[in-house]
Amino acid sequence: MTLPFEKHEYLERIDRVKRSMENEGIEVLISADPANMNYLTGYDGWSFYVPQCVITALAEPEPIWIGRAMDANGARVTTFLGDSSILGYPDDYVQKRDCHPMDYVADVLRDHGLASKRIGVEMDAYYYTAAAHDALVRSLPNASFHNAHWIVRWVRNIKSDMEIQYMKQAGRLMELVMQVGVAHISAGVRQCDAAAAIYQSQISGMGDFGGDYTAICPMLPTGIGTSTPHLTWTDETFREGEATILELAAARHHYHSPLARTVFLGEPPDYLQDCAKGAVEALETVLDFIKPGVTAEEIVQTWQKVVAKYGIEKDSRMGYSIGCAYPPDWGEHTLSLRTGDKTVMQPNMTIHVMPGIWYDTWGVEISEAIRVTETGCECLANVPRDLFVKE
Amino acid sequence: MTLPFEKHEYLERIDRVKRSMENEGIEVLISADPANMNYLTGYDGWSFYVPQCVITALAEPEPIWIGRAMDANGARVTTFLGDSSILGYPDDYVQKRDCHPMDYVADVLRDHGLASKRIGVEMDAYYYTAAAHDALVRSLPNASFHNAHWIVRWVRNIKSDMEIQYMKQAGRLMELVMQVGVAHISAGVRQCDAAAAIYQSQISGMGDFGGDYTAICPMLPTGIGTSTPHLTWTDETFREGEATILELAAARHHYHSPLARTVFLGEPPDYLQDCAKGAVEALETVLDFIKPGVTAEEIVQTWQKVVAKYGIEKDSRMGYSIGCAYPPDWGEHTLSLRTGDKTVMQPNMTIHVMPGIWYDTWGVEISEAIRVTETGCECLANVPRDLFVKE
Repeated sequence: MTLPFEKHEYLERIDRVKRSMENEGIEVLISADPANMNYLTGYDGWSFYVPQCVITALAEPEPIWIGRAMDANGARVTTFLGDSSILGYPDDYVQKRDCHPMDYVADVLRDHGLASKRIGVEMDAYYYTAAAHDALVRSLPNASFHNAHWIVRWVRNIKSDMEIQYMKQAGRLMELVMQVGVAHISAGVRQCDAAAAIYQSQISGMGDFGGDYTAICPMLPTGIGTSTPHLTWTDETFREGEATILELAAARHHYHSPLARTVFLGEPPDYLQDCAKGAVEALETVLDFIKPGVTAEEIVQTWQKVVAKYGIEKDSRMGYSIGCAYPPDWGEHTLSLRTGDKTVMQPNMTIHVMPGIWYDTWGVEISEAIRVTETGCECLANVPRDLFVKE
Repeated sequence: MTLPFEKHEYLERIDRVKRSMENEGIEVLISADPANMNYLTGYDGWSFYVPQCVITALAEPEPIWIGRAMDANGARVTTFLGDSSILGYPDDYVQKRDCHPMDYVADVLRDHGLASKRIGVEMDAYYYTAAAHDALVRSLPNASFHNAHWIVRWVRNIKSDMEIQYMKQAGRLMELVMQVGVAHISAGVRQCDAAAAIYQSQISGMGDFGGDYTAICPMLPTGIGTSTPHLTWTDETFREGEATILELAAARHHYHSPLARTVFLGEPPDYLQDCAKGAVEALETVLDFIKPGVTAEEIVQTWQKVVAKYGIEKDSRMGYSIGCAYPPDWGEHTLSLRTGDKTVMQPNMTIHVMPGIWYDTWGVEISEAIRVTETGCECLANVPRDLFVKE
C-alpha cells in the first residue's frame, strides 16, 4: 500500500514533535488520538474502538505503534514503521475487568527503559479514557505524567503543501457533495434518502479520486431541528415551508473540507432572509479580513460588527482549525475563532469559518473552509454563498 | 419528534439502573457513553465530540441531561425529559486549556446537593477522557468516585421486545446491505465505489424504513488487507484472484445488526475453501448449540472442537454483545465469547457471533448476529452462509 506522504514528511513531523516535547520537558509522548497516530506514522484503520497509541520517545529513532494484535498487520500495511516498532497486545486485554491494554503499554515502556521518564499523555483525547490513564499511572509508579494534549495538535496546525493538496481535493469533493445534498432536499423526499445520496457522493467521489469517511456524519437538521446543530436524519420527509441545514464535509486521506449551507423549500420568511443576508455579508467581510498577522479574536470582532447591524446574536465560537481527523470530530482542537483566542494567523493554517446562528425554533448556517495564504485567505471549496431557495 | 420507545420503557430502564446502582452502592451515576445516554433518555445527536452526560441520581425522579448549550435544543427534541432536566453549558467551556465542561457538571451536582455522594463514573467509556475525570475529581473533593462502567451496559444486555423489533429491522436492512456489497465486489471496480454503494443502501434502506449511521464504517479489506480486520477502502480496484472481507452492519434507531462475509473473485485456492468450510461448519454447530443456560465459554469450546479438525487456530474472542451503539463501536462491551467468560445465555441477549480468522497474509470472516430465544437462537439477518465466489 502506498502511503499518502513520503517518508521524509513523517520524519519531519516527528522532528517537530520532538522539538516541542523538549520545550515542554516531555521525554516520552503517548499519542492515543487516531489523527495524531496517523500524522506521526501513517497508521490508518478503524481500530480506535480499542485502546492503541503511538509512543514518541526522545531517545528512540522511530515511534512505536502499539495496538491490538489483530490490528498489527494493519500497521504493517499502512505505516512506514519497521516490524520491530509494531507491537500488538494479546486479545486477553480487550474489554476486561481485571486488566487494561495500557498495562501492556506500561510493560513496553519498561522494556524500553522508559518507565521513569517524564511522560506526556493527551489527557483530553477521545480515546484516552479515565481508565486508560488510571492503568498507566498505576503501572508506572516511577514515571511522572504531564498533560501533553496540545503538542501534536499544534504541530499539525500549519499544513504542508501535500496536506493542502489533499484538503483542496477534499474541497473539490465537497463541491460535489453539497450539490448532491441540495439537489435531494425537496418536499416529499425522505431525509434518509437525502443522507444516503450525500454519503454515496462523499465516498464514491469523482473519476480521478474517491473520498474517505468523514469524522462527523452528514448533518441535515430540518424544520424545528434547525434550532440545534447536531441532529441527524429520520425517515420523515422534507416539508414545503421549512428550512434544512446541510452541515457536511468531504475527506481525502482523512483531510477534511467541511461546509454548511441552508436550504429553504418555498418562500422563506423575511426574518430568515434577513438573517441569511447578514450571515453572508459578515462571512464575506471576514474572508476579506483574514490574512497572516491578524488574530482569531480580531476575526470575531470583524464578524460581530457586521451582524450587529442585523440584530444577530451569537455566543458560541465561530470557527476552528481543521485538517486530518477521525470520528467523532473534524475539528483539530487548537485555535478557535472566539473572544480571548489570540492565535495569530499564519500561512497554511486551515480553518472552518462556521458562524452558525441558532435561535429557539430556527437557525442559519453558511460557512466556508479556508486556507490562510501569504496575503489573505482562499476557500477550499467553491460553492455559491447564499441561502438556497427551492420552489 | 416521536421517540422510538414509549416513555414507560425509558422509566423502566431507569428503574433497573437505579436498582443496579443500589446494589453497587452508587448514589449518583454519570453516564457519558452516548449509547447509555440514548438508552436512558432517548437523546440522539452527533454531539458526543464535546463532553456531555446524563446524570441518574437515586434521589432524583428524572435523569438530568447536560451538554453544550447549542445541543440543549437537540435534547428537547429527542428526549422525554422536562425542560428543567436539560442543562446546557456555555460555549466558553469548549476545548479550553483553563476549564473543562466537567467543571460545569460538578457545579450542577453541587446545586442539586449531590457533591458529597458516592458517584459512579463510566471509567472506560470512549468519551469519558482522563481530563474529564480529572476535572470532576478536582471539582468535587467531598465526593467518592467509583467505576460504574458496567452498570448501564449490563442493564442494556437483555433486550426488550421493542428493541428486538428494531434489531430485526436492522437485520432486514443488513440483508439488503450485504447483497449490495457483494454485488459491487468485482474486478476493476474501485473499492470506494463499493463502499459508497454500501453506505447508500445502509442509510436509504427500504421503502418502509431507512437506516441510521452505523457505529463502525463499512470495512472491506481486500487482498493482503484480509490479514487484518479494520482496514477501510482506497481508490484501488478489486482484483481477480483476491479475496475481500465485508464486515458491515445496518442500524435502526441505532440498534445494530452486523454481518461479515468473504468474497473471492475467481477460483479460490484450496486453503481458503477449506478454511471457509471449517468456519461455516463451526459457526453452524455453534448456532445449534446456543440456548438459554449455556455459557459464553462453552460456546467457544463448541466452536474450537469443530475448527480443530480443520487446523484452524484463533486466539482472539469470537463474538460479543450488540445492541444500541454509537461510533466508534457497535459492541456493547459486556459479554465476550471467549475462554474465561462465564456469562450464562438468557433469552433476548443479542450477540455478534464473529469468529474472524486472520493469518499473516489472508483471512476469512463469516459471522451471524443472533438473538437468544426461549429455546435456542435465531439469526437477525438471513444471508447465505458461505464463501461467496464470483467468477
